[in-house]
Amino acid sequence: MKSELEIFNTLTKRKERFVPLVEGKVGMYVCGPTVYGDPHLGHARSAISFDLVYRYFLHLGNKVRYVRNITDVGHLENDEDTGEDKIAKKARIEELEPMEVAQYYTNRYHDTMRLLNNLPPSIEPHASGHIPEQIAMAEAIEKNGFAYRVNGSLYFDVAKYNEKYPYGKLSGRKLEDLLQTTRDNLAKQDEKKNPFDFALWKKADPKHIMRWHSQWSDGFPGWHLECSVMSTKYLGERFDIHGGGMDLLFPHHECEIAQSVATNGTEAVHYWMHNNMITVDGQKMGKSLGNFITLYEFFSGTHPRLEKAYSPMTIRFFILQAHYRSPLDFSNQALQSSEKGMNRLLQGWETLQNIQPANQTTVSAEEWSEKLYAAINDDFNTPVLIAHLFDLVKDINKLKTGDLTIDKSNLEQLQKLFSDFVFDILGLKAGVSETGEKNNMTTDLIDLLLNIRKEMKANKMYELSDEIRNRLQEKGIVIKDTKDGFEWEMRK
Amino acid sequence: MKSELEIFNTLTKRKERFVPLVEGKVGMYVCGPTVYGDPHLGHARSAISFDLVYRYFLHLGNKVRYVRNITDVGHLENDEDTGEDKIAKKARIEELEPMEVAQYYTNRYHDTMRLLNNLPPSIEPHASGHIPEQIAMAEAIEKNGFAYRVNGSLYFDVAKYNEKYPYGKLSGRKLEDLLQTTRDNLAKQDEKKNPFDFALWKKADPKHIMRWHSQWSDGFPGWHLECSVMSTKYLGERFDIHGGGMDLLFPHHECEIAQSVATNGTEAVHYWMHNNMITVDGQKMGKSLGNFITLYEFFSGTHPRLEKAYSPMTIRFFILQAHYRSPLDFSNQALQSSEKGMNRLLQGWETLQNIQPANQTTVSAEEWSEKLYAAINDDFNTPVLIAHLFDLVKDINKLKTGDLTIDKSNLEQLQKLFSDFVFDILGLKAGVSETGEKNNMTTDLIDLLLNIRKEMKANKMYELSDEIRNRLQEKGIVIKDTKDGFEWEMRK
Repeated sequence: MKSELEIFNTLTKRKERFVPLVEGKVGMYVCGPTVYGDPHLGHARSAISFDLVYRYFLHLGNKVRYVRNITDVGHLENDEDTGEDKIAKKARIEELEPMEVAQYYTNRYHDTMRLLNNLPPSIEPHASGHIPEQIAMAEAIEKNGFAYRVNGSLYFDVAKYNEKYPYGKLSGRKLEDLLQTTRDNLAKQDEKKNPFDFALWKKADPKHIMRWHSQWSDGFPGWHLECSVMSTKYLGERFDIHGGGMDLLFPHHECEIAQSVATNGTEAVHYWMHNNMITVDGQKMGKSLGNFITLYEFFSGTHPRLEKAYSPMTIRFFILQAHYRSPLDFSNQALQSSEKGMNRLLQGWETLQNIQPANQTTVSAEEWSEKLYAAINDDFNTPVLIAHLFDLVKDINKLKTGDLTIDKSNLEQLQKLFSDFVFDILGLKAGVSETGEKNNMTTDLIDLLLNIRKEMKANKMYELSDEIRNRLQEKGIVIKDTKDGFEWEMRK
Repeated sequence: MKSELEIFNTLTKRKERFVPLVEGKVGMYVCGPTVYGDPHLGHARSAISFDLVYRYFLHLGNKVRYVRNITDVGHLENDEDTGEDKIAKKARIEELEPMEVAQYYTNRYHDTMRLLNNLPPSIEPHASGHIPEQIAMAEAIEKNGFAYRVNGSLYFDVAKYNEKYPYGKLSGRKLEDLLQTTRDNLAKQDEKKNPFDFALWKKADPKHIMRWHSQWSDGFPGWHLECSVMSTKYLGERFDIHGGGMDLLFPHHECEIAQSVATNGTEAVHYWMHNNMITVDGQKMGKSLGNFITLYEFFSGTHPRLEKAYSPMTIRFFILQAHYRSPLDFSNQALQSSEKGMNRLLQGWETLQNIQPANQTTVSAEEWSEKLYAAINDDFNTPVLIAHLFDLVKDINKLKTGDLTIDKSNLEQLQKLFSDFVFDILGLKAGVSETGEKNNMTTDLIDLLLNIRKEMKANKMYELSDEIRNRLQEKGIVIKDTKDGFEWEMRK
């Protein structure tokens, strides 16, 4: 059951049984953020989608090496490769060292990812930290005859590559069509032989701050190069999964394939996975459209489009309620509905904790297990998985009212199953501070509340003392009355 | 007043008036962690000491660029430079990619620093991310005649350097004495001309995983090089402050000076600052001594030497109660006394918030301001500063009892002064979750408590309702009763 995972491979355009290159070990690379702005819903979606993949592989008992890069250099302004480095541009405007800008936004990215309960990747390599390796790969591509020099820059020769290997196999584009559609651009001043060629190394203009020495010029590596270099450096020349947003499929990932093949004669990636995009009230997100909402704005409710603040867990659940390959439209209504749904799920967990086992069982943990695993094994189908969990909550409520019964063994299995899926795999949290830990403040407040409750019970004020218990249970705090007073614990 | 900061400069061995190289801008570099183990009290002390320096410069209105490195490569096993890279060794033992080990411990370092309320540095460069720059500096030193090659490695020629520039000026050591004391080591197999010479580039043995290509060999940079390179890259060839633990003074910082001078003919650093070490019950900390307690063990109380858990803020206050240049001995008693002291201070803040202004004043905010600034301006004398704050708390308590009086203007100034010093400069936190924010859990619990209190008051249960108010105030939560019910706010 657990080994039946199928993944939709963008390369073959079909679902394939997942078989790792090395049994029990999974290597995955995901394109991370370009750190020149605050993280938004798009960053959250990609990170949460692949966090789910990471968590599920871990849950299945694999050793997973999850690499996600930080692009702190070399992301060019536009596809024509004539733009300047985005970060350096921002830095000059703000009169800051580019690395100071990159560090600031890297910190904010990490902070929001932590709040969203994404596990940190095993390795988070920086593009600026792998210049020699990028030079080495560009050198190999040039040596193999797939690159040409112009004015101190080195370009990948797509037409030449396409004579030997099919360029466009991931995106399904054909070079002839690309030539056609880009003919208009030819009028533009461009040192490239063909508009679809891309920079492996770009000579820095005199004012450009971020620069390194190379045999071609003092300059910086082309953006596409860093992912080919860092994925293979940490995962090997061939590895299991490469993920990223669908917007990166072309040209970024197409260029990655070409670079790997031009270097080693073989492709690096076994399964390509792409998450779909987010729209806002049906429109594409964009800074110029005024519908560009950062994650911090969601958490604080400070954007004019937001009716209220949405917690990181609400954002997470909202994203997981759609399949990662489906488009997802943000609206206040949708988020508020997710918030309610998530609370219903967590309330179900609450109830499940307090179910008393019966001698006979009309609920089968095994059947539920089959359903839940079938959903996630079907290319991580979280909407189906969550729909099953909602059905399970209905059964849990029937267990509470006595309309269904469950024996001890099934109850324990069901509790473990629920916890595995909701907390470990979907990565939701309930009843804890946003650090994911009991913190002192919370602990003290709960102790204070429970002491008051004790005093109330001593004074036979049962109504108020029960209210405290109930309200705490709603927050995921389980109270056990003991001989000496009480104990409590917080569930994850 | 505020411009009268004096800093003890290890180079001149006296306190000097601090004058930045560029008015209003401060550049500081601090040696960060080698990420091959969990952070301990020593890491906390260095980071908190320089966080205080950073915070104070920010408080004074400077633009501060604070650079602290991550040593993820090239920290050699021993001073003789014959050891292998510490991280690579650990990685091979654990069968992990070295960068996976480095990432794991970097994450844990960041997490503990956040819990200790240390502000993140402006730039946190990785040694592995600056290989070309390190090669370039080693090249310059070789070109200038201060290095020699042996078997693919490049060594700094200390004796040659000492003919032209004084080696040992920071640590006060003389080369002749060093020769004397290291004579015993000469018998050892070593390819260096002199035992005090140090590697700029080290050839990697065939099994060494972390390696880069250079003109000397496939290898890795010597440890001392990274700080010279990364400090000047981000702060300029000459910058204001270089900090680090006293254990790094020799040979690390001495070598940094030699490298800068050998490269540029001038020293890079204006003020050298060194924090003193931590002992445990009078003994040096060491893994072999069993007194090596990690920060996570402090926070959770899980080390056998600990009588209880100590919060990150208790650790912070404990460290700040000693002057950064004084030795500091850990004991349970000392930490518990710090905990009490900190609570007294925070209680004072609590009281100060609720003081009612009078028409006349017997307390002068200006006088307190002079005292507090005088203490911190005296080479960041936090023990004196904190002693003054304790005295101030005594006055605050007299204001409460009416033995002293204060007018509105002085009260407001005093509140700002207290908040500036305790929260902004010393970096303490009170009454917030460990994320530094109101979180939902805390908010809900407080609302629940206050609703119960409201009900109690309606039932004339004043004793219990007052207890709730008092206990919440102790936690830094200020309650205002309003017509409609209540409002509350949390102070930082």
